Amino acid sequence: MSLRGRDIISIKDVTREEMLAIFGEATSLEPYARSKIDVLKGKVMALLFFEPSTRTRLSFETAMKRLGGDVIGFEEPSITSMAKGESLMDTVKVVENYADVIVVRHPFEGAAKAIADAVQIPVINAGSGALSHPTQALTDLYTIWREKGRIDGLTVLFLGDLKYSRAVRSLIQGLLNFKVSFVFVSPELLRLREEVREELREQGTSFVEATSLSQELIREADVIYVTRIQRERFVDPMEYEKVKGSYKLTMEHLRYARNDLMVLHPLPRIDELDREIDKTPYAKYFKQVFYGLLVRMALLKMILT
Amino acid sequence: MSLRGRDIISIKDVTREEMLAIFGEATSLEPYARSKIDVLKGKVMALLFFEPSTRTRLSFETAMKRLGGDVIGFEEPSITSMAKGESLMDTVKVVENYADVIVVRHPFEGAAKAIADAVQIPVINAGSGALSHPTQALTDLYTIWREKGRIDGLTVLFLGDLKYSRAVRSLIQGLLNFKVSFVFVSPELLRLREEVREELREQGTSFVEATSLSQELIREADVIYVTRIQRERFVDPMEYEKVKGSYKLTMEHLRYARNDLMVLHPLPRIDELDREIDKTPYAKYFKQVFYGLLVRMALLKMILT
Amino acid sequence: MSLRGRDIISIKDVTREEMLAIFGEATSLEPYARSKIDVLKGKVMALLFFEPSTRTRLSFETAMKRLGGDVIGFEEPSITSMAKGESLMDTVKVVENYADVIVVRHPFEGAAKAIADAVQIPVINAGSGALSHPTQALTDLYTIWREKGRIDGLTVLFLGDLKYSRAVRSLIQGLLNFKVSFVFVSPELLRLREEVREELREQGTSFVEATSLSQELIREADVIYVTRIQRERFVDPMEYEKVKGSYKLTMEHLRYARNDLMVLHPLPRIDELDREIDKTPYAKYFKQVFYGLLVRMALLKMILT
Repeated sequence: MSLRGRDIISIKDVTREEMLAIFGEATSLEPYARSKIDVLKGKVMALLFFEPSTRTRLSFETAMKRLGGDVIGFEEPSITSMAKGESLMDTVKVVENYADVIVVRHPFEGAAKAIADAVQIPVINAGSGALSHPTQALTDLYTIWREKGRIDGLTVLFLGDLKYSRAVRSLIQGLLNFKVSFVFVSPELLRLREEVREELREQGTSFVEATSLSQELIREADVIYVTRIQRERFVDPMEYEKVKGSYKLTMEHLRYARNDLMVLHPLPRIDELDREIDKTPYAKYFKQVFYGLLVRMALLKMILT
Repeated sequence: MSLRGRDIISIKDVTREEMLAIFGEATSLEPYARSKIDVLKGKVMALLFFEPSTRTRLSFETAMKRLGGDVIGFEEPSITSMAKGESLMDTVKVVENYADVIVVRHPFEGAAKAIADAVQIPVINAGSGALSHPTQALTDLYTIWREKGRIDGLTVLFLGDLKYSRAVRSLIQGLLNFKVSFVFVSPELLRLREEVREELREQGTSFVEATSLSQELIREADVIYVTRIQRERFVDPMEYEKVKGSYKLTMEHLRYARNDLMVLHPLPRIDELDREIDKTPYAKYFKQVFYGLLVRMALLKMILT
Repeated sequence: MSLRGRDIISIKDVTREEMLAIFGEATSLEPYARSKIDVLKGKVMALLFFEPSTRTRLSFETAMKRLGGDVIGFEEPSITSMAKGESLMDTVKVVENYADVIVVRHPFEGAAKAIADAVQIPVINAGSGALSHPTQALTDLYTIWREKGRIDGLTVLFLGDLKYSRAVRSLIQGLLNFKVSFVFVSPELLRLREEVREELREQGTSFVEATSLSQELIREADVIYVTRIQRERFVDPMEYEKVKGSYKLTMEHLRYARNDLMVLHPLPRIDELDREIDKTPYAKYFKQVFYGLLVRMALLKMILT
């Protein structure tokens, strides 16, 4: 299957069949993740990062280089000609003369879509606004699929900030292509947005919500997806201090876990994951980083060839 | 024709014959602007950008990579060892040990020339001070030549800031190699500098100056070259508010234009070009960006081989 | 000899035999320092520069590219996800999924070692804290070896800041693998640290210390290694003004020099080297830059193949 010329703006743009094709391609590219294949020789990827994200940038950059392609671009708006008042749309219309694909990260929702509409080359959204981060979602889905051999039938527990995390939102939308049981554990203030709950209901997907991580919930989880709780979400700092400890995953919690539980995290993390967990077989968050490289290699190859 | 080992500091360094050779090379490299040719494999270009210019940097970087070469360098002085007091000349004498060509952008007039004198590898000026921007001039000239099939005999109208724009100054100097009729339209305060008018007179070139864009001037123009008027040029902000609207090119103006008028702009722009113009066949400023890539590919190839 | 998979954290990690092997490899790679060899094709080097150092960064980057490898990374902490609170160790554990070798520069002593312990790919220290800069030391040693044909038996005079310069400290440790006479000339305040003198004594190495550069000391020197004195080391600015002139090497000094004296400097410099010296055959500091490129090419090749 090819995705030739396709924009990847939202995880909703990708069907279940396409996801499985991407997973297959990602797996077949694994031998080249530590060497090089010249499949994208002569292709240039432009990284336009209007907000910093070293991890995501390095993942895309490595993916393109391992495939034999070249990379141009920038991170941070301050060094672009934005400073002179050039509009975003002019910038991307300049860049489409140089590159074969644009990978964009932008603080505003809708920026990636607007860029895709303005240019004739394919655009990949590398995180925009509070909602979309499709390549993170594909990474998370691939990690589950690769490690569990399937996604259907699993119970996925989300822990932490379910309101503002674009990784959570994108992953939920991706999981809706599969038959999954959802469990959401968060402080009241950071509960899943009503529109996402509505989406789940519309699809006839049942889900459980809780404000604390009980033994029982842990016991039933195949996957625990942990996210960071950001202090700045709270108007009252005392409120933050009160809740933050309750959404930290500890070794104590894992005493109740299934043997094959996997713990994921989109990174970066602060202290919501006991560092002791890193050494356990539950921890898959660094492997997730490697799988993210494979997924981005697969996407670039399928979009550009 | 080769320009092997040549410095390109000012557009005046380039003869008419060399310009035509560069245009020919640029045209013949077009098939590789969307793929790759290994003609500069083993060559390293150092981009030393002592002031930010994303557009120009990405153009050079893409040009080098499409030709199979490698790129090193920096943008912005703050991240260089300048911060430790290292002099500019020491920096470039270090860099000539790494690179085969230096592309420099610097806020000071004369910096590119001084660097070229200090090092033994060729130096290309990517914009220095208020006067020189030779690769922009070559881009503009090539765009006219490519789209019109000739430069001789055309009427070129410049609109906007004719005093401080280095793109305008460099293009005028480049056009002096051809038989061109010049028209200059600007606020009194941003008129062409006396020394440039002197240069034009010395060459026996007649030119027209005006402070507003009349129907008649538009009617006679083959090319309208628009530039930005920067607020900071005016001591009195009221003065700026008064003039800025008068130097904006609008759809209304284009009612009087020839069918084959071309509108150019060195970009970035603010609001001196009605965005509606983008959709008309007059607008060549994004094509100009693509031609700039071809010109830079041609220059790098001719200087390094 | 291969150094396959080895970390290079301190110059002390490298034996005399290994140094000589690196020097041999560096010399044999010289033909490729101005072209390219595909010996590291398929390898990715991650440059993690948590403090800016353009010169060292460009040297490593050029070395990797001349060997056919690819480069990813960042300079300056502000653009990393550090800003979000991600720990250094998480960052490097992410990056080891992308790269085959990490080159790190960090303001804290011990950072390079801690990173090497955390990841499974080799780590090269490109300058950390006040003590270690092993690739600079190898560069300096190679420059002496290459230009003099030997290191044993030479008299090496260090001039300037001997207390805080990590280049000085690393070079002294490297020279301890050879039979060298040491001379140290510095202001009282910037004398060699007691622990380094102790190290010299333990090795039975005799050395001379002085606070001014006499004719006699110059006469006996085979190598003068000059370093910058930084104003910020002095609590009392008057103190700085008093001493700075005394540690500047001038043409006057060189009247007493041997014909084959070589003057080295790790760069960047401020004004501790009379610029007139640049034109004399004593000046080897720009050649030192080129030799630094060869040494880094040799290291990367020996560690990665």
